[in-house]
Formats: sequence, structure tokens, C-alpha cells
Amino acid sequence: MKFVVQRDQLISSVQDVMKAISAKAAIPILTGMKIKAESDGITLTGSDSDISIESFIPAEEDGMINAEQIEAGSIVVQARYFPDIVRKLPEKTVEIEADASLKVTIRSGKAKFNLNGQDADEYPKLPALQTDDNFEIQADLLKNLIKQTGFAVSSMETRPILTGVNVKMDEETLHFTATDSHRLASRQVSIEDMHAAFSSIVIPGKSLNELYKILDDNDQRVEISVANNQILFRTKHLNFLSRLLDGNYPETSRLIPEKSQTRLHLKTKELIDTIDRASLLARDERNNVVKLTTKDTETLQISSNSPEVGQVAEEVSLQSMEGEDVKISFSSKYMLDALKAIENDDVIIEFTGAMRPFIIKPINGDPILQLILPVRTY
Amino acid sequence: MKFVVQRDQLISSVQDVMKAISAKAAIPILTGMKIKAESDGITLTGSDSDISIESFIPAEEDGMINAEQIEAGSIVVQARYFPDIVRKLPEKTVEIEADASLKVTIRSGKAKFNLNGQDADEYPKLPALQTDDNFEIQADLLKNLIKQTGFAVSSMETRPILTGVNVKMDEETLHFTATDSHRLASRQVSIEDMHAAFSSIVIPGKSLNELYKILDDNDQRVEISVANNQILFRTKHLNFLSRLLDGNYPETSRLIPEKSQTRLHLKTKELIDTIDRASLLARDERNNVVKLTTKDTETLQISSNSPEVGQVAEEVSLQSMEGEDVKISFSSKYMLDALKAIENDDVIIEFTGAMRPFIIKPINGDPILQLILPVRTY
Repeated sequence: MKFVVQRDQLISSVQDVMKAISAKAAIPILTGMKIKAESDGITLTGSDSDISIESFIPAEEDGMINAEQIEAGSIVVQARYFPDIVRKLPEKTVEIEADASLKVTIRSGKAKFNLNGQDADEYPKLPALQTDDNFEIQADLLKNLIKQTGFAVSSMETRPILTGVNVKMDEETLHFTATDSHRLASRQVSIEDMHAAFSSIVIPGKSLNELYKILDDNDQRVEISVANNQILFRTKHLNFLSRLLDGNYPETSRLIPEKSQTRLHLKTKELIDTIDRASLLARDERNNVVKLTTKDTETLQISSNSPEVGQVAEEVSLQSMEGEDVKISFSSKYMLDALKAIENDDVIIEFTGAMRPFIIKPINGDPILQLILPVRTY
Repeated sequence: MKFVVQRDQLISSVQDVMKAISAKAAIPILTGMKIKAESDGITLTGSDSDISIESFIPAEEDGMINAEQIEAGSIVVQARYFPDIVRKLPEKTVEIEADASLKVTIRSGKAKFNLNGQDADEYPKLPALQTDDNFEIQADLLKNLIKQTGFAVSSMETRPILTGVNVKMDEETLHFTATDSHRLASRQVSIEDMHAAFSSIVIPGKSLNELYKILDDNDQRVEISVANNQILFRTKHLNFLSRLLDGNYPETSRLIPEKSQTRLHLKTKELIDTIDRASLLARDERNNVVKLTTKDTETLQISSNSPEVGQVAEEVSLQSMEGEDVKISFSSKYMLDALKAIENDDVIIEFTGAMRPFIIKPINGDPILQLILPVRTY
């Protein structure tokens, strides 16, 4: 194997692929990165069994030469050293060569590294995902779906299914839902040309988090296909493969109250800033509890009390209020997560009682819903 | 106590003072920050017994009002919460008030915090440093002295005296020296109007490190005075007090070879980049050892060999070479620290044998000297 590649292209691909590589991988060869050279380009692969990422550097694209002098072949290099070496090389191009004795030579300018490689034949084959059942979604929209729901997955392994995001298919609508049983985040989007062979899957929150970091925030198309308990996200030069979680995701729709006793309309940023301040004193306590109290139809108060430290209280203007007075306590962290996911200057909060879950949604009717269970305070 | 202060001024002072406050302070009240209001301004104080910092916010300066409505008094607030509260307040001004029951009220816009304070009378008195024996130095020059020597102090408590920087006074010259017994860094500067009552002191490296972070990189004057085993650095609005280390600093001048067998002239950045790359493979090994070998009078090679991982070798151009060939191994970390402290595009390295300390200095004759002990490799 031998090729000369543009260093910036290589750095970018290496960074993407590294997101799937763990120094603690159970199979030793998975601590390495696979490099495969073919006449049309270079493919890098990283995997930790749960997630696998392939990044392709085309030899030529849009009239630009990314890789040349290619002699086909493959090798596995130690992922512990390879990224730093590539990043610190002196010149704009890099020559990488592997010989039959698995010695890898990296040359750039006057610098020359000789690394011990591993046999690429020992690298596990990624599961092939051959299916016509797929659909496309814009990268920026997919990132938004992940951002608006992914934070609400459970971090506890006691109910493993809740560590994932539930994705449901319903006619031409995609539903993303995550809950840790104390709060819930959901978002729907319409999809055209849906050819999907699934009705409900659960994608590990960790996988979506890594996918979020790799995807660019633009309108490129991401092709999604599901088969054999795996999901594949494919862009022009990237294959991102994740296993799915086994088990039935709980039915969450009945958690969502259908009618409300109180409806508040507020400015999102003002409420975020106020709760952020009120949570400063509460941060040591379990859940960082703050209290919301309506004062009159134009004002509510956010307050927090931490006997050792002190109290804080601040009023927030209500844009409008309908229904009964409210006095409710909740986790400031959950509330801040939910409000930041709303992505609208104006927010509606609907309460159905001091001990019932309440709903946060944007005023514009976007199908985003955040639900939080209040905290009992005596 | 009561006053209204500009929030940005308060944030800046709080940040400085926080550098002396430790959550793990042995005396509980030292986990707090003392606030003292007088008609001419506000003084904040933080201390961890080793370092004490006072920051003064003048009520009026250059025609600008920083603090007003001042009612004299003092209080100690919990340093764990106060900085975040101040930073997140909504308006440009902050009102702070303490009552006789030690309740502290912080108001800004609609936000109101009530904190439990502590009695300022219980806060330790800082040692008074009354002495006419002082001298002045520019802040940027003092920062440079710290930066060029402070990294070489020992981090081991086995010889506590080596955890400090030795400062010697000699006619009108100030000598800064630090060594951890494997390498040494020293720098001299001339001082005018020296009235110092000391000939040799040792300042904790940690104190200088914090001072470095607080000082602005400009030509303001820093007044330095030493008395009662304490050193005071005073700027217009800041008092930085540190204890000195007890004990005799070792005589280091005899470590420095007086003549050399080989003298190399190199481009500093090229050598830094090459050693940085060579150290990538060595980073797990003790000391990150790299090898320097002269090839001919125009070229040297930097190389490193890590049997498990691989080898790296790279040539560097010599600007000039005088004397015998060199083959020597050393810690890449020590070498990089030393080269970065040189602050000159061209560097001279002088060797007196493979097992003797070697010297690194800038080509322009500035009184900076870096010394490194080689590593024995078999």
C-alpha cells in the first residue's frame, strides 16, 4: 500500500473516524485505525463494536487532487499515535506506505516516521447493510432533532432502553422521543419519499451524540437505512453505522396531559437567564430545585432557597396568563435543558397542577414538546 | 456596609482575588472573600495563608465613577458562590449590602440574592509589610522573568527549596534561577534605583505562577518589597503578598560549564517543531527521550525510538557548527521548555560531552541561560 495525500484532508477524515475508536476496546485491533487505499481513493475506518465510522477521501473531486500515486492495499495503524503525527507533520502533503512486513512509513518534508502496523485482514468486517428501505433527511435538520431530544436520554443503565432515543415512523412523519422518566423531549418532522422498513427503533444516545459532532451543519442529504438491528447514516463521504438497542420502548403518549389548568406565555431568554441565576445557590442540592410562583397575571417569581447559603428571588414578566395561579418546584437543570431546546424567542408553559407533569413548547406551533415532572417540596 | 458598584469592575477584581482562595483552606473563613467598603473605594481580599491578594476598586478614577452610595463596613462572603452570582447578574451595576446580622443582599435589576455572610473581624489580618527597601520593575518584564524561569522549578516536595525560584540581588542586577536538579533556567535583568534589603530569597513557584496570571502584560510599574519572610508585589490597585521559602538555595553557578567542545547555531522554531514531532512516539516513556546527532557541519538529526510503536528521524539544518561531533540524548520536554523560553529566532547550543550538561541561549547575548542534563542511553 502506498499513496500521497493532502494533509488537511487526511486530518479531517482522521478526526471523524477517531470518534468511533476507544483506547479501551475489548478487541485489541479495534484500538487501531484501518487505512485502505484503492485507485479511486483512501478509506479510513474506526470502530468500537457499537459504532463504526468509515470516511472516504476521493482521489479526485471537483477537479482537485486529494490523493495520488496510489498503490492499492490496506494496513491498521495505532490510533493512539497516528492522529497527532498527522497533525504535526511539516508539509501540506503526506506519503504513507506499508510493506509486507506491516511496517508503515509516513513521510512529510524532512520528517520520517516508521510505525509498527497490524494486518488489515485481522480487522473485523463491518456488517453489510444492504437494503432499499431508506429515506433522506437534511444534515442540519437531523442535527436539530438530535439536539432537541438527545439530552433527555437516561444516563442510568438500570433501564438500558431509556439510554436511547426512540425513533418512530408514522405515515410520512418521523417522531424522535427521549425520556429518563423524570422528563421527556420529543420532536416530529415530515419526511418525503419515505421507504423505511421499520416502525419503531431505539438508537443509543451516545451514537447520536457522536453523529451530531461529525455532521456538518448544512443542507447536505443524509441517507438513513435500518436492517439487522443496525442503523446506517450515509453522507457523500461518510458511513456512520450504529447498533440499535434491543427491547420495547415504553409508550410515552399517555404521559402527556391533554388539557391544562394554566397557560403561561413568556420570553424564552429572560426565563433562561432568571432560572440560571436562581440555580446558582441550589447547585449542591439534589436536582438543583427552583420554585416558580405566579404573582399576578403579569408577573411570576423564580426563587430558590438553600438554608446554608442563602435565598434568591427574581421576577419575570408574563406576556400573558390564562387559568389558575401556579406554585410549582422543579429541577432547574431539566428546565434549562428544555428551554434551550425550544429554539424560539417565545415559549408556552402549560400546567395541570403542582404535582402533575408540565409542558413546554414554542409559541409558533412547531411540533416540539418538552415535558418535566415537578419535584415535591414540603 | 452598602455600595453600588460597576459590575465589570467587580468581576475583574473578584477574578484576581479568587486566585488566592482555596476551597480546601485549613482555616474555614479563608474559603470566603472579604469585602471592605470605605469612602474612597472597595477592597476585596482573598488568602490561602501562602498567598494573599488585595484588589482595590477606587470609588472614582480618571473621572469615571466605579462605586457610589458607599456606607463603610466589611463582610466575608462565600467564595464558592459569589463569583458566579456576580458574573451572571443582569444589569451593569450591582448593589451590595450587609446588615448587622451578617446577611448580605445583592441586587441587580430584578434579581435579588440574600446570602449568609461571616464576620469580617474574624478574617485574619494580613501581615503588614512596612519597609522602604523596595524597587520597581515593569509588569511585562516581571512576567517574562517568571515565564523564562518558573517552569524549571521542582514539583517534588522532597527538596522543598527547589519548588521555588531563587531571586538574587547583586549591585543593580536581579538574577532569577530555577532548577529541579535535572535542568536549570536563569535570567538576569538590570534594575535602576535598587533599594532592596535582601541578597537572596526563594519565592514559591506556585506564587509566581498566580502572579503571572494576574499581572497585565504592559509597562505599568510593579513595586517589590521584602520583609519578615514575605514578599509584596504592589501595582496601582493590587497587593500580592506571598510567603518566602525557608532554607538555603543551592549554589548553581558551578553547574554551568565554562567552555564547550561543540557550538551549534540553529533556527529556534525549526528545532522546536522537529523535537515536538520526535517526542510523539516517546511520550509514554520516562522523560520522552530523543536523540540529537550531528551528521556533518550543516545537518543534525533528531530521532527517537520506541520499540513497541516505531521510530522517527528528521534532519534539521545547522546555521553553523564549531567543534566536535555530538551524539546526545535528552528529555524532549525539558528541551522544548528551554527552547520556548529563549524568545529569539536563533539559538546557540553548547555541548561539553555526551554526559555533561549542555547550555541553550539566544544568539543575541541576552542574559538568559537554559541548562539541561543529558539522559544516559545504552
